[in-house]
Formats: sequence, structure tokens, C-alpha cells
Amino acid sequence: MANKKESGEFSLIETLVARRPPKDALYRPCLMAAGDDAALLASLSRPVITTDTQREGVHFRHEWQTPSEIGEKAVAVTLSDLAASFASPVALFVNLGMPAHLPDVMAEEIYDGLGVALQRYRCDLGGGNTSQSSQLSLDLFAIGEGQGAMPMRSGAEVGDLLCVTGPLGMARGGLQCLEAGETRFPDLVRAFKAPRPRFDAADVLREAGVRCVMDISDGLIGDARHMAKASGVTLSLDLKEEMAHEALTAWCEVIGESPLSAMASGGEEYELLFTCSPPVLSAIEAVCPSVISVGRVTAYSGSYLVGLPCDASSFEHR
Amino acid sequence: MANKKESGEFSLIETLVARRPPKDALYRPCLMAAGDDAALLASLSRPVITTDTQREGVHFRHEWQTPSEIGEKAVAVTLSDLAASFASPVALFVNLGMPAHLPDVMAEEIYDGLGVALQRYRCDLGGGNTSQSSQLSLDLFAIGEGQGAMPMRSGAEVGDLLCVTGPLGMARGGLQCLEAGETRFPDLVRAFKAPRPRFDAADVLREAGVRCVMDISDGLIGDARHMAKASGVTLSLDLKEEMAHEALTAWCEVIGESPLSAMASGGEEYELLFTCSPPVLSAIEAVCPSVISVGRVTAYSGSYLVGLPCDASSFEHR
Repeated sequence: MANKKESGEFSLIETLVARRPPKDALYRPCLMAAGDDAALLASLSRPVITTDTQREGVHFRHEWQTPSEIGEKAVAVTLSDLAASFASPVALFVNLGMPAHLPDVMAEEIYDGLGVALQRYRCDLGGGNTSQSSQLSLDLFAIGEGQGAMPMRSGAEVGDLLCVTGPLGMARGGLQCLEAGETRFPDLVRAFKAPRPRFDAADVLREAGVRCVMDISDGLIGDARHMAKASGVTLSLDLKEEMAHEALTAWCEVIGESPLSAMASGGEEYELLFTCSPPVLSAIEAVCPSVISVGRVTAYSGSYLVGLPCDASSFEHR
Repeated sequence: MANKKESGEFSLIETLVARRPPKDALYRPCLMAAGDDAALLASLSRPVITTDTQREGVHFRHEWQTPSEIGEKAVAVTLSDLAASFASPVALFVNLGMPAHLPDVMAEEIYDGLGVALQRYRCDLGGGNTSQSSQLSLDLFAIGEGQGAMPMRSGAEVGDLLCVTGPLGMARGGLQCLEAGETRFPDLVRAFKAPRPRFDAADVLREAGVRCVMDISDGLIGDARHMAKASGVTLSLDLKEEMAHEALTAWCEVIGESPLSAMASGGEEYELLFTCSPPVLSAIEAVCPSVISVGRVTAYSGSYLVGLPCDASSFEHR
């Protein structure tokens, strides 16, 4: 239905394939990757699959992120779901939607960022697709090999503690800084622009026997509500101002917002939210000191969440 | 970055999950499907993965297709790559991009179409994602279990015949009819609106030991060129007017186009293009009479394709 464009679809796919990490840098290389109609992977005992979308104006803006940063973050965000599922990355597939007016060099720079992230996480490039689009968009699809039993958001048990693997509200603060042209808080901006999936923390949680895990993409309130609903429990939040990262505290002073509210209603943190018993938490903290306990799991009392800071809300991508 | 919309992302995903076919209708149900961060599939010996995009204005138009037809075709097109790889569909993942001005009921109707197609091909719904988009778009990822050795487009051998599993140029003719408001050629319009992946023919080819297969999405010329390049051979086309479906012949008379050119420069046929020896072709034709031999594989002679009809070209989505 589109016009022929010799330099279009085929060459862009080849450009993407050229970013495939070298085989010896991969956890489990594809047997046949991009090029044919489909990719063939090595056998998978516990195939774990996740998908994500990053769209211009909804998930990123060119004013704030270079094409390479956009590509790198898209991979990190997608693989975060594998971390939350205790799965090691095997292969990533990327569909790129490119507006006709954007130069091909932008696609190449996005692919550069994808390549950097793939190499970091030892993940192969399985394939992809480019098509004309009114809006720059990346649809990513990741396949991992599950390591042991898959944790679920429905596994929260009454009496457990509700915990996170790192500071909350950082990415939202970074986004606010970018919107305001504020440059004094690089830690916040980095949290927004360059999140890292917590495979390191996931290993610790898995070895400690944690069974209820999810990554925080919709903010603590949004995702804790998902967890509470799936588990049929009430999660009682107990946030304290001293839990806030010092950069977030300082930024909240600038804008006159409560750090409690900022921590509760963040988003895109890509830290892991999990539940465990108090002794298990002690064992985890010994190897992963960034872990914070932010509440408790109680019997369902009529609402999924209690202890919310005033005026907190979770933000959501439609 | 987007505003909170209570009825947005979460409920649309639940709407999609409600279309998951019943377990006993599936080839191999997911152990854990959509809902958690990731899906967990049953073990796969030969995981075959493919991805496709269907975008409004590039791949479909609302004037021509109902939302349900759009959904159904998107699944068929994606699974066609699995058919071309001799793989049985296991699970499909769907990312939907929805413009804010479109009613949610349109997403529901698209999901209805997805559900119908999933059930037809005994494929589970593994998960998905909805996000706001300036343009209606579907990004689909399909996972299949390979049945035997995966055929490749690089497998064409000198001396073999070049064949297709059914008539060529039909979908392109159907698209032209829709553009012209022509209603006398339902076979052509059906080929464009409701293509069917050729799992039936793929089974026959696999049992006959065919090793070089791809599906025709870019038209015979476009895809034969891919095959010739990957195999390092010249493909010598030998199209004849009597190979054209009678509806295509009649439509070509209406518009004064050569049927040879129409067959060569089609697109979106989703028939399989393959190579095999003459005796193997006889065996295949005995069970699959729609197969047509359209040329021969010869040693590389300086061009990938010879025997092209005049003024033929392949069309391509950027």
C-alpha cells in the first residue's frame, strides 16, 4: 500500500542486524536470527515473554533524549519485566515506526542505543521490522529463560513486609526537572533517562526464596494496587520522609511538594516491588543494602491500599 | 508522562485477555498468560519467533475494513511467517496503539477479530500492551514450535523449480478494486481483506522435504529477489497468462494491465514461495493442486532475477 522505496525497509533492517552483539558476548545466541521470515532460538525450558512500547510524546521526547538514549532506555524498560520474573534475557525483537520526515540516521542512532543495551545485558537481537508511522515508536518484545519458579504479583502473604529494591520517585522527579529546565539534579534526570533493570537485585531475591515480585512502572501506588488486587490482600503503606533520596528531598523543597507524595506517586522507577517475611528481609538487606521496607501485607479490609499520603496519585500511559 | 485515565490501559488489557481462547482449543496453552509482568510458556524445543506491524494508512484503512477484520488480518499476516517456517503457533502478543479520539469500542472490536483468528489457529494469547498513539497500530509478536528443520530462504539449489502455493497478484487486485470502488471481484477483495496463512500447504511441503520456503508479503519480484540474494543464485521467472486466477484476468482487462505484470508485482499474498526438484513438485501437486511452478533456479549470472515482465515492480512498506 506504501510506495516502493529501495532504500527503505530492507536497508534499515540490515542496519539493525549490524548492531547484533558478537556471539561470545551473549547468554544464549539465536540459532538463526533476523533475516529470514522468523528467528529460531535454542530450546527454552521456561520461556518467559514480555512486551513493551515506547512512543514519542507519550514515553519520550526528542528535546530531552538523544536517539541513542531512547533506544537504550527502551531495552532497559522491556528487560525490566524479565528481571521481575527472574528470567535471563535471551533475545529481543524490535519494531520501529518511523515518520517519513525523519532522517534514516536517526534510526541508526536509535539502533546504536539498542546495541549498547543488548550487549550490556548479553541479550541477542532476534529480529525486527520497520514501517512508516506518523509518530516515532518502538515496540519491543523480549524472550528470557526463567530461572527457577516464576514470581507472581499474586503471591503476597499476610504478615509479610512490602519492600522495594531502591529509592522511589526518582524518575518522576527527573521528568519534572526536564520539564522545568532544571539542571541541578543529575541523579533524578539519570533515573528518568537511563533506568537499569535490577537483574542484580532479582538474583538476590530469587536466592532468598521471594515469590511475589513486580517491577514498578506505574508508580508505587499504581503497582502496589495491582499487587494487592492480584493477591486479595490490603497493602498498608508506611512511607517516611527519611526514605527519600536526598536529591528527591531537595527537589521537593524546590517545588514545594511532599516527598511522601513524590515517592508514592512516581512512575517508571523500574525498581522491584516485592514481599517477604522480616527475617528474609534481613538476609536480603545484608547483600542488597538499597532495599527499603515501605509497608506491610494485611488481610483484605475493604480497600487494596491504606496509608496513602494525601494528594498522591499514580500516572499511567494510555 | 501521560495523564492518569482510570478506564484506560488496565481495562483495555483486561478486555483483550477476555478474548483468550479456551485452553482446550489451544495447541499448547501458556502456563501463565497476560496479567503479570511477563508470560510463562511451556517448554519449547525449537522456539520460532516472528513479528509484524499493521498501521493505519500504511497497512489498512478504516474505509475498507471493519475493526474486527483489521484484527483478524493482523493475526493471519503474523502467523504466515510461522507457516513459512514450518512452525505451529503457540502464543501471540499484541501491542495496540490507540489514538485518544477513537472510542474504546473500536479496540474491543479489533480484539474480537484477534480472538476469532487465535481460535482458528489454536494459538494462545500470551499478553499485550495498550498505549496512546497518534495512529491506530498493531504490533504483533508470535511464538511457534518448529516442526522439524526450519526451511530458509537461502536454500534454493540450482536445477530446482521455483513454485508458489497459490495464485499470485490477488491481494493487490483486491486493493485496486477497493481503491476504485469496484465490487464485481469478491475473490480479489477477499484475498486482500482476509488472507489465510498456508499452514495446510506448509505441512505438505515439510513432509515432501522442501527446505527453501518464504511467504510472499512483498510480491513475487520482491521476495524472489530476497530468496535469490540469500541463496546466491539467479531465479529465472517463467510466468504465463494462464497461471492468472480468472478474477485477476478479468480485473486486468478492466484496467488494461498485463496479468503477467499483476502476478509479478503483487504483494501481501501470503502464499508460500518455495523451491524443489521436479519429482518432488509432482508429489506435492498430488495433494496440493493449487501449487504453480513459476520459474527455475539457475547458477548466478550477474542478476538475481531474470524473465521479469515489463513494467513490473514490487511494492514495499517503509
